[in-house]
Amino acid sequence: MEKQMIAELKRLVGASYVMDQLEDRICYSFDATFRDFPPDVVVKPGSVDEIVAIVKLAVQYNVPVTARGAATGLSGGSVPVKGGISLVLTRLNKIIEIDTANRVAVVETGVITENFVNAVSQTGLFYPPDPASAKTSTIGGNIAECAGGPRGVKYGITRDYVLGLEVVLPDGSVVELGNKFDGEMAGPDWTMLLVGSEGTLGIVTKIYLKLVDKPAAKQTLLAIFSSLDDAAHTVSEMIASGTIPTTLEIMDNLTIRAVEDYLKVGLPVSAEAILLIEVDGSAAAIAKQAEHVMKVCRECGATEIKAASTPEDIDKLWQARRAISPACGKINPTKISEDATVPRSQIPSMVRRLREIAKKYDLKMVIFGHAGDGNLHPNILSNKHDHAEMERVEQAVEELFKAALDLGGTLSGEHGIGYMKAPFLKWETGETGFAAGQKLKQVMDQHGLLNPGKLFNA
Amino acid sequence: MEKQMIAELKRLVGASYVMDQLEDRICYSFDATFRDFPPDVVVKPGSVDEIVAIVKLAVQYNVPVTARGAATGLSGGSVPVKGGISLVLTRLNKIIEIDTANRVAVVETGVITENFVNAVSQTGLFYPPDPASAKTSTIGGNIAECAGGPRGVKYGITRDYVLGLEVVLPDGSVVELGNKFDGEMAGPDWTMLLVGSEGTLGIVTKIYLKLVDKPAAKQTLLAIFSSLDDAAHTVSEMIASGTIPTTLEIMDNLTIRAVEDYLKVGLPVSAEAILLIEVDGSAAAIAKQAEHVMKVCRECGATEIKAASTPEDIDKLWQARRAISPACGKINPTKISEDATVPRSQIPSMVRRLREIAKKYDLKMVIFGHAGDGNLHPNILSNKHDHAEMERVEQAVEELFKAALDLGGTLSGEHGIGYMKAPFLKWETGETGFAAGQKLKQVMDQHGLLNPGKLFNA
Repeated sequence: MEKQMIAELKRLVGASYVMDQLEDRICYSFDATFRDFPPDVVVKPGSVDEIVAIVKLAVQYNVPVTARGAATGLSGGSVPVKGGISLVLTRLNKIIEIDTANRVAVVETGVITENFVNAVSQTGLFYPPDPASAKTSTIGGNIAECAGGPRGVKYGITRDYVLGLEVVLPDGSVVELGNKFDGEMAGPDWTMLLVGSEGTLGIVTKIYLKLVDKPAAKQTLLAIFSSLDDAAHTVSEMIASGTIPTTLEIMDNLTIRAVEDYLKVGLPVSAEAILLIEVDGSAAAIAKQAEHVMKVCRECGATEIKAASTPEDIDKLWQARRAISPACGKINPTKISEDATVPRSQIPSMVRRLREIAKKYDLKMVIFGHAGDGNLHPNILSNKHDHAEMERVEQAVEELFKAALDLGGTLSGEHGIGYMKAPFLKWETGETGFAAGQKLKQVMDQHGLLNPGKLFNA
Repeated sequence: MEKQMIAELKRLVGASYVMDQLEDRICYSFDATFRDFPPDVVVKPGSVDEIVAIVKLAVQYNVPVTARGAATGLSGGSVPVKGGISLVLTRLNKIIEIDTANRVAVVETGVITENFVNAVSQTGLFYPPDPASAKTSTIGGNIAECAGGPRGVKYGITRDYVLGLEVVLPDGSVVELGNKFDGEMAGPDWTMLLVGSEGTLGIVTKIYLKLVDKPAAKQTLLAIFSSLDDAAHTVSEMIASGTIPTTLEIMDNLTIRAVEDYLKVGLPVSAEAILLIEVDGSAAAIAKQAEHVMKVCRECGATEIKAASTPEDIDKLWQARRAISPACGKINPTKISEDATVPRSQIPSMVRRLREIAKKYDLKMVIFGHAGDGNLHPNILSNKHDHAEMERVEQAVEELFKAALDLGGTLSGEHGIGYMKAPFLKWETGETGFAAGQKLKQVMDQHGLLNPGKLFNA
């Protein structure tokens, strides 16, 4: 990277917010996936005007710009695979407004998800998306990858809450997309083109988010199964029976043992599978719903059902769910986390296919995830320094994507595409869809400088 | 139009589905707005392959193609302002699948909204969007304009139910956009670019729609006010108090009198305004919600509240609501129906502005609409042959749009942009947004043949 450009960047945002030493570049070279791509320079702008100036400078010097928040991503979306500028947006972290009358919040892109969720909660309203990374991930990052979370089953994922966006386009112009308020609709809505676009079409700087009623009460149930198939079957039966719980999480035996080993919360380590089910709503409604949930679980072969109703007990169960990633990380150093998603009715078939794939390639695979919306998280636990094993992992991952698409599913439920799934995107979009995506990318980003190597410019 | 092209169209879809006589062309020259633009030829394809062939032929002969369903639109979106082919999609009217296990329906574009709603209802599920035109409008048309309806307050509008689309692009290629199932997310979602795009970016042929639980019970309330301001204030208070009813409709005195005159259902003709409020859910939940609704209404000055609980009484009230358009049509021959939408908290201000505008330009204006989501329908009742009056109407409409945008609102809540609002779109998008829209339109539709004269090619 030209010295002149670094100097200009320092002039634009202040020397302390521009870092080009190797140790800095390494710190910004990775996310929660397993490969490292150091940027040439790390820049932390403090305003939209600064972002505009940086983007224009990048065009002038023909240097890639890859935006990122906390880089907790699981597909490599924010990693600068072609080097250039890592544009760190965490300084834009103001919650601008929580408008309770219109149930809309306006936030800057770098606001940490959990901080926002808590601020909304204090007003008596509710922002449902709850990615496992919420403590550190940013709202802008949630949008770049269209993050989900356990509550997706009932409440939908990030895109269902994005009303409008302020975006810096690749030529440095600033546009407002979509709507500021719910219920508006004037012409085609560009907003959803940006949601999940991993910063390839523009850099999101401000976000209008929809808020909903906070449920009055909730109850959490733990259903224990002596067969993984039975647990999977319960999921599809539950949805088909007309009950959509708030969350409907599955954990297989390997996951249960990993978490219990890590956390010691009393999970049933001999169970082949558990379902973690939460219902929310008015006190009267949830009692009835919980009863129905238990009935379906029993009919589908649950051997035991535990109900947690105190906040402490509920929290313990969710602690276990949130601990899956670190717990698995303790077993093996490299964790390849997938989120291929299938129609909810296909959950039993997908679980069977996953176990066959793990067996075929002799790999340690844990199966868990938001089964209620078809979004399973098969995680392959391996060691990136074992090259023979990593080759088998690659083959298994390909087969896993094929299985999901075969069953009418998709490559991603909530992790995005990133560098990891970019080579497979065409399988999902088809040739025509991919060509249309390339055309759009070329028009919006003529010089191909926004996060190159991702999505339609991979 | 060249004879040769007509002959080729007849060969493609069969002579009986191609009409170029003046009387046919006139029949397809209008929607529910007040100007007529006859196409050169009316074509009714019977399959996606035929649509592809027609689009390719249109490119060859450089002739515009404007897709339409039942043409019940209120902004002129489906009217062929530049002539060419009126592509009538009503023969593609199959409900392909209602997948209750995954809560997804797949329909062809020409399915009539009410037929679909009823078919879904028979499976025990629910498709909430309920435009007043549901008896005749098509799902494809609902998508082209992003139709809404009274239930939008609680359930959202058409876009909230569109998971994926099959689309014929302007070059005749066919793509599948978005997802077939809820909870999927792989890369940017193009679907929403097509929703509300009025057939300017592609022709939607197949639609994947999300279905939800059918509410167990509902109750309808009629609150009577001696002041329109009080009724408007009730709307914003209701939302702010944390209660989102299923519907929250407002009708001013002129509307009430027009409907009562037309229908004789016993509406309170001396009331300055009424609110028509429906709540739905479990029986226990709605009793509580109805109580709260009544409390807010009383606190905000309702002089009387009537509760309809028998299906007949509920139906009577909704008959009155649905009769507004024909009833107003009886008063004056030309009805200019707007749907400028404001944040819900601004409903009282918008109502005041509307009354000032009507007075300033000496126009007869009825005010009604889905106040609960900020989507008011001021209708100006006039006579298109009175040129002096129509000039005042035009000025009033401009001022009305400005008022909505001033208050943080939008040109359209559910009617789309069409030829009527196209001249004002830039006020909402801004120059940069409009330029981006033009660029996108040019890339996707190089020859500018899909519904020219609308949106970004107006």
